[in-house]
Amino acid sequence: MLTIAIHGGAGTLPRAEMTPSQEAAYRAGLGAALDAGFEVLERGGSSVDAVTAAVRILEDDPLFNAGRGAVLTHEGTVELDASVMEGRNLAAGAIAGVSHVRHPVELARAVMEHSPHVLLIGAGAEEFAHARGLETVPNDWFKTEVRKAQLRRVLVGDTRPANELSALGTVGAVARDGAGNLAAATSTGGMTGKRYGRVGDSPIIGAGTYADNRCCAVSATGHGEYFIRTAVAHDIYARMAYGGATLQAAADAVVMDRLAKMGGEGGIIAVGARGEVVMSFNSEGMFRGSRTSEGRREVAIYRDH
Amino acid sequence: MLTIAIHGGAGTLPRAEMTPSQEAAYRAGLGAALDAGFEVLERGGSSVDAVTAAVRILEDDPLFNAGRGAVLTHEGTVELDASVMEGRNLAAGAIAGVSHVRHPVELARAVMEHSPHVLLIGAGAEEFAHARGLETVPNDWFKTEVRKAQLRRVLVGDTRPANELSALGTVGAVARDGAGNLAAATSTGGMTGKRYGRVGDSPIIGAGTYADNRCCAVSATGHGEYFIRTAVAHDIYARMAYGGATLQAAADAVVMDRLAKMGGEGGIIAVGARGEVVMSFNSEGMFRGSRTSEGRREVAIYRDH
Repeated sequence: MLTIAIHGGAGTLPRAEMTPSQEAAYRAGLGAALDAGFEVLERGGSSVDAVTAAVRILEDDPLFNAGRGAVLTHEGTVELDASVMEGRNLAAGAIAGVSHVRHPVELARAVMEHSPHVLLIGAGAEEFAHARGLETVPNDWFKTEVRKAQLRRVLVGDTRPANELSALGTVGAVARDGAGNLAAATSTGGMTGKRYGRVGDSPIIGAGTYADNRCCAVSATGHGEYFIRTAVAHDIYARMAYGGATLQAAADAVVMDRLAKMGGEGGIIAVGARGEVVMSFNSEGMFRGSRTSEGRREVAIYRDH
Repeated sequence: MLTIAIHGGAGTLPRAEMTPSQEAAYRAGLGAALDAGFEVLERGGSSVDAVTAAVRILEDDPLFNAGRGAVLTHEGTVELDASVMEGRNLAAGAIAGVSHVRHPVELARAVMEHSPHVLLIGAGAEEFAHARGLETVPNDWFKTEVRKAQLRRVLVGDTRPANELSALGTVGAVARDGAGNLAAATSTGGMTGKRYGRVGDSPIIGAGTYADNRCCAVSATGHGEYFIRTAVAHDIYARMAYGGATLQAAADAVVMDRLAKMGGEGGIIAVGARGEVVMSFNSEGMFRGSRTSEGRREVAIYRDH
C-alpha cells in the first residue's frame, strides 16, 4: 500500500474563531501538499522523495509555521529547523538555526545524503547549504504581516487565544512507498518570540522525527520541550519494537497519556510498516491529511473532521 | 546505595602506544573527577549536583575532549556541546555550538533550571550564559598544543592510529543519590576537524544523555552520528521499560550488538534504579571510573583494567 500523511501543526485556531474562508484556505494548503507527496509515490518515487515534496509545499505556504510564514524570534528574525529520516537504513539529516535557506527540509536531506553528519547548526549549516547549491533567500523573505503582528502581541504579553495558532506550529510528513520503505520529515520556525537560540523537537532525531521500517515513521508537532524530554518519536517506535504495542496503542500511550499528563500539548502523525496511518493529538485540533492507494483521502483540522 | 560513574571518552590510544606516564595522567584525571562527584553524594548532595561536579573537573582537564583541551574544528576554533538530565522529573537542558563558556555542563544545567527550554544553540546560548552570569573565556583558552597538532594532522589527511584518541572523545557522568534520584550529564568538543556546525549526540537528549528514575541514567561516548540515528540513551531506557531487559542486557544489546553491526564505535556508562553500574563499549578502550557507597572504586581504560 502507498501511504502518505501530513500535518500542519497541532496549534489550530479555536474552532469558534476560525472563519469559513480561513478554514478553506488551510484545507486547500494541506490538500495540495498531500496530493503532491502522493503523486510522487504513484510515479514510483521513494518515501523520502514523497515526504520531501510534501514538506516543501508546506514550507512555501505562508499559512504554516515553516519556511515562508514561519513565526518570528524575539528579535524579529526567522530561524528554521528541520529533519528527515529513512526507515530502511536509519539514515538521517537535520539542521537547526538556519536563516536563509528557502527549503529547510531539503537542507536536512542534503545533510543526510551528502555529508557524513546528522546534525548541522547555524552559520555552518548555511555554509553547507551554499556548498550544495541550495536556494537561499533574504531573511525578510520568510516574514509575513500575520507573523509580525503575532510577535508584537507576544512581546506585549498578549496571550489571547488567537495567538495559540503560532505556539505549536510545525509541518511534517510520513510515507510508505511501493518498496515498503518508510520515511519521515519535519520542519518548523519554532515558537513566536523564541530567544537565546532556542531549538525545539523538530530537528531532533528521536524527538520530532523517527523512522524504522520494522515499526513506523513518525513526525511530531507540539510543545517541543516536552517532546524532547520524552523522546516522543523514538518512544513510539520503542513501544512497538520492545513492548509489542500496535502503532495506534503506542501513539496514544505517548500522546494521550504520557504527554497529556505532563502538560505537553501536541500530536503526531505516523505510518506503520504495512502502510496504516495513525494520527494522535491531545490539542483541540491538528492540521492534517492522509491519502493511500486504497482510495482513502482525508483532510481534517478538528477532532471530528 | 550512592553511586557515581564517569567516562572520559571511548577513543583511547591503542594500548601499545600509551606510555606509563600518559596512562598515569589519565587515571589521575579520572580519579579526581570520580572522587569529586562521589563526595557530593556523600555530603548529601543530589545526583545532578554530583554529575555536574564530576563533568566540570573533566572539562577543566586538558587531557579530555571537553572544555579546555577540546578538539579543534576545521577552522581551528573550539565549539562545545553539553547536556544534563534528571531522572526524577525528566527535566533536561542542553547547549550546542558554544565557544566561550568555560563549563558547558553548567550552561546546560542553567538551561534546565532557569529557562523554559531544553536546547539552546550558538550565539543565543552564549547570550543566555551571559544573562546567567556564567564564567566565559576567550576561545583560545580552550586550545592546547596537542589539539593543534591533531588538527594539523587531520587537515593533511593523516589518519594514523594516534589520531583515534581525538575521534571519539567525550566526557560524562551518571549518578544515583541518597534519595534514589538518577542524573546524567555529557560534554564534548566533538570531532577534530568538524565543519559546517556539526553537532554530535552529546547535546541530544535521548541520544547522548537520558535519565528516568524508573530505569536508568545513561551517558554515551562514540561516533555521534550512529548514536543519534539509534537514539542510544533512550533505546537503553526503552528496552528496560517496555522489553523488561536488565540494564546490562539493554546496554549490551545497543552497544555490542546494534551499534557494532552498524559500525558505530563507542560505549556508554549507566546507573540503574538500585545504583548498579553498567559500562559497555565496543571500542578498544573507554576511559572510565565508578565508585559506590558499598566500597567499590574503580578506574579503568582498557577492557580488562
